[in-house]
Amino acid sequence: MKLAIYGYGNLGRGVECAAHLAPDMELVGVFTRRAPETLKTLTGVPVYSVNDILDFKDKVDVLIICGGSATDLPEMTPSLAEHFNVVDSFDTHAAIPQHFANVDAAAKKNGNIALISAGWDPGMFSLNRLYASAILPNGQDYTFWGRGVSQGHSDAIRRIDGVLDARQYTVPIPEALAAVRAGENPTLTTGEKHRRECYVVAEDGADLDRIEREIKTMPNYFADYETSVTFITKEELMRDHSGIPHGGSVIRTGVTGLEGENKHVIEYSLKLDSNPEFTASVIVAFARAINKMHLRGDMGCKTVFDIAPVDLSPLSPEELRAHML
Amino acid sequence: MKLAIYGYGNLGRGVECAAHLAPDMELVGVFTRRAPETLKTLTGVPVYSVNDILDFKDKVDVLIICGGSATDLPEMTPSLAEHFNVVDSFDTHAAIPQHFANVDAAAKKNGNIALISAGWDPGMFSLNRLYASAILPNGQDYTFWGRGVSQGHSDAIRRIDGVLDARQYTVPIPEALAAVRAGENPTLTTGEKHRRECYVVAEDGADLDRIEREIKTMPNYFADYETSVTFITKEELMRDHSGIPHGGSVIRTGVTGLEGENKHVIEYSLKLDSNPEFTASVIVAFARAINKMHLRGDMGCKTVFDIAPVDLSPLSPEELRAHML
Repeated sequence: MKLAIYGYGNLGRGVECAAHLAPDMELVGVFTRRAPETLKTLTGVPVYSVNDILDFKDKVDVLIICGGSATDLPEMTPSLAEHFNVVDSFDTHAAIPQHFANVDAAAKKNGNIALISAGWDPGMFSLNRLYASAILPNGQDYTFWGRGVSQGHSDAIRRIDGVLDARQYTVPIPEALAAVRAGENPTLTTGEKHRRECYVVAEDGADLDRIEREIKTMPNYFADYETSVTFITKEELMRDHSGIPHGGSVIRTGVTGLEGENKHVIEYSLKLDSNPEFTASVIVAFARAINKMHLRGDMGCKTVFDIAPVDLSPLSPEELRAHML
Repeated sequence: MKLAIYGYGNLGRGVECAAHLAPDMELVGVFTRRAPETLKTLTGVPVYSVNDILDFKDKVDVLIICGGSATDLPEMTPSLAEHFNVVDSFDTHAAIPQHFANVDAAAKKNGNIALISAGWDPGMFSLNRLYASAILPNGQDYTFWGRGVSQGHSDAIRRIDGVLDARQYTVPIPEALAAVRAGENPTLTTGEKHRRECYVVAEDGADLDRIEREIKTMPNYFADYETSVTFITKEELMRDHSGIPHGGSVIRTGVTGLEGENKHVIEYSLKLDSNPEFTASVIVAFARAINKMHLRGDMGCKTVFDIAPVDLSPLSPEELRAHML
């Protein structure tokens, strides 16, 4: 199958690497809003301008849209789904129903198929919430994020006067995680489940006390959390905090038996060295699935919930039953 | 939807409890090979003889077959799939392709749908092997079982001369589990991943040394494992070992990036107070799915790999997208 990438940031490069690993995929090109000649891809895949995308209508089986959820994807995905089978990683949870409706209408105009919100949350974490709640209806869900870099929170610190750069880690609180895993069913706010570690590079002579206070009292982002602020040099930031790790756990605890006498704990957890490369790997597996579904005549907007797992694998159903079941 | 249970042991009772919890299910009856009047169900569901099963052809949407994999299911599932939509928990991994073919042919005769090998292994563990290997093709799989009661190993001990009763626990070796979780990619045999704890009630005056030796040298079952044998009284067995807990972990470690420079660990783990009740809860969720698929006109044999997760939930696709994605 032939893939193309629309947008070439961290996620686009991750998709390039994942497609490179897949035995059954060929990467046709990378499409960028920048001047194509200024971009060099990791694997030598050709670069084209987004303005030329429609010339590739018959040369691409699935187009992977690697844009931001705030402003890019709400426009890009519907408009591209009219002409291509597409996958995106739209992650504004509250806006998913509207995005789904827009993409569904656009894709159906020309019999295309689209999959939105692929990745790990939304994505694999969502799938595990669904499976676990269907199996244990009498139970409770917990999602912990981290230890990992939160891009949004890092950006919020960078906007403070006197801050040159920053990295924020979301860290699950071990006692909260242990209580959940023990099946104690605690009631926990997000702030009781996580603390926030901030590493900040300040301008020379900046008022460090003020910066720390502004971080710790920032509403929504930090005020409701146990937050630590550590000032470091630009060199330390580059040396110790240049990665983009992330991960977390989806846990469901529930009971079975006539009187609810038996407890069960289902946990799905991820430890990721590279958030964008793992997200890209999920996207590429789901691109394989929607290509198969398109070949069977399916169309319109899908989410990870709609995909039969068999379609994600390059192996045949017979091989999967014989070796993986 | 209307369910019925065929076979009323631990698993059948688990299905009864799970169906009782489900908001969208009604349990029509339990079918048994014993004399129906000798059986009393947990929730008062009526009991019928298996000889009367065909009278219920139009009164049951999905029949859950709760038989053993060794001799019951290879006969029962194909013969019942001719007349009913069915689910079983066939767990002889090596015989799945043959069982699938038999059930598929039988189900298609009258346009029925069947799902085989539902449960947690095969079942949820299989699904997680599939998802994780599709996402991280460049990686390695590990399955750990336990801490939990192995029925087959407990039975093997009971067959030794001088043994009255026994309970065998399969226990993951913590060092092996830690090495895998750390992404060290160790090469491990099943015996290097697990040890076996045996609790044995011996006859008065039995030769305990001989029993212990016979257990520890039993080929396939114990000889390749670190095995401990503890002799206890019948009362201690009843008091401390009457539960049927189980669980385990499916772990995949893999790398991404152009040079495989980034490591990732995906883990799915279960801690179950009651193995049969959890298995039953999985079965009931998949029964919901195949009923929906049947109503859409699908037929033939399926496995957990073929089921779109959306079909497992009593919630609508819209509700799932709005609240669980």
